[in-house]
Amino acid sequence: MPPFEHIAVIGAGNVGYHLALHLHHSGFAVDAIYSRNPTKAGALAELTGAQVLDNPENLPAAIDLVIIAVSDSAIAEVAARLPDTAAVVVHTAGSVDMEVLSRFRHYGVLYPLQSFSVSRQADISSVPLLPEAVNDTVFEKITSLAARLSTSVTPASSEERRFVHLAAVFAANFTNALYGAAAGILGKNTSLGLDILLPLMTETAAKAVEIGPKAAQTGPAKRNDHAVIQKHLNLLPPELRSVYEKLTELIQRQQNEEL
Amino acid sequence: MPPFEHIAVIGAGNVGYHLALHLHHSGFAVDAIYSRNPTKAGALAELTGAQVLDNPENLPAAIDLVIIAVSDSAIAEVAARLPDTAAVVVHTAGSVDMEVLSRFRHYGVLYPLQSFSVSRQADISSVPLLPEAVNDTVFEKITSLAARLSTSVTPASSEERRFVHLAAVFAANFTNALYGAAAGILGKNTSLGLDILLPLMTETAAKAVEIGPKAAQTGPAKRNDHAVIQKHLNLLPPELRSVYEKLTELIQRQQNEEL
Repeated sequence: MPPFEHIAVIGAGNVGYHLALHLHHSGFAVDAIYSRNPTKAGALAELTGAQVLDNPENLPAAIDLVIIAVSDSAIAEVAARLPDTAAVVVHTAGSVDMEVLSRFRHYGVLYPLQSFSVSRQADISSVPLLPEAVNDTVFEKITSLAARLSTSVTPASSEERRFVHLAAVFAANFTNALYGAAAGILGKNTSLGLDILLPLMTETAAKAVEIGPKAAQTGPAKRNDHAVIQKHLNLLPPELRSVYEKLTELIQRQQNEEL
Repeated sequence: MPPFEHIAVIGAGNVGYHLALHLHHSGFAVDAIYSRNPTKAGALAELTGAQVLDNPENLPAAIDLVIIAVSDSAIAEVAARLPDTAAVVVHTAGSVDMEVLSRFRHYGVLYPLQSFSVSRQADISSVPLLPEAVNDTVFEKITSLAARLSTSVTPASSEERRFVHLAAVFAANFTNALYGAAAGILGKNTSLGLDILLPLMTETAAKAVEIGPKAAQTGPAKRNDHAVIQKHLNLLPPELRSVYEKLTELIQRQQNEEL
């Protein structure tokens, strides 16, 4: 028997969108969708066969799982608008404590450790899912759901999840900003696109995980090659020059184990 | 007929090591190896069936390709120590102009766009190789060699290559430093390792190339979510706090197209 039979998804942004679709494609019944943006809710309802809620207050009584996938700052407000319910209520946020949902009888968290964009397909079946719950019964239900959605399920407390999210900001958001800088450098000065760097980008990720980032490091900052560093600084616009200096300093501290 | 029949590799560091091995495994004759570190030269000679040179001056007359794979600052010195030769002489550096080799009759560059470590296997057959040469004849020979080593060959001038290398420092060295920061955050505060972030890291790379880094961006900096940003700053040690602030600022500039 599936751990949940009638699911409501609140939020149709990047996370809500991909999670609702993956639930639907994994054979779960997504019965209801709410989004403050009715167009997004309608589009996602159409894809999943759900009904659109005009207000979280009108949660159908049959719902046994509510997934709140809205921006961090909106979770408390959405939670306050839901009716009293016997359903398990979870949110999907990295940086928000589970206790934001403590007004419910059964609550927890299901944090997908991935960067989703509505405009790009996501394969949640290989995305690490980090469950947490108020008690063992709820934990087992959430974990059982997670295991049907993904091959990678790792429990994490609110405290741990906060640091996982912080680490993810470094490994994904900030990394993506550096890809943006790289794309800009290529676009302004060469006929090449970011795709020429993709093998380097994926190998850098794989190598860091396999041998550790410190051993994996290469390049002028690690070699302390002042001549190349100076050449690079001279080629950069001022706003990227300060980023270059800051990260060169970070590499040198890491190599000297000052961090 | 192969473009070169007798190859010498000068340098047995990360690039020289992997290039010599891949040449050997691709059926090319690596006849001679020189490294200022005789142990490294000996180990690589054993793996490739080459002889060890005790000095670049003693380059065998039969050599028709010399690959100088030493650190940027040592290329000129190695080039000065080589005898007059009819061989094609190339270096493998991103940030060094081809003309550093202008004392030779036939010269060029073969730049592998990858971050190599001796301690990790490298699959050069999918590494972009960027050839440049002093004239069409040499260019065709180097390009023909490159096409036998890799499926990805893209010509680049010295000027372009300099910017490709600079972009690679952002996309690989600096990115790896952020992976190091992420690993440190996880290691100090959770029971999880960097491997839990690998799906996120590889998806971030793939997504940036597919839809562009600006559209691919997610997270608190993009959403301008001051509450989460402030929480994150409070969780970080000072040396990472300033990195966090610098890159949050970069993301916000990128999203506002100030860059």
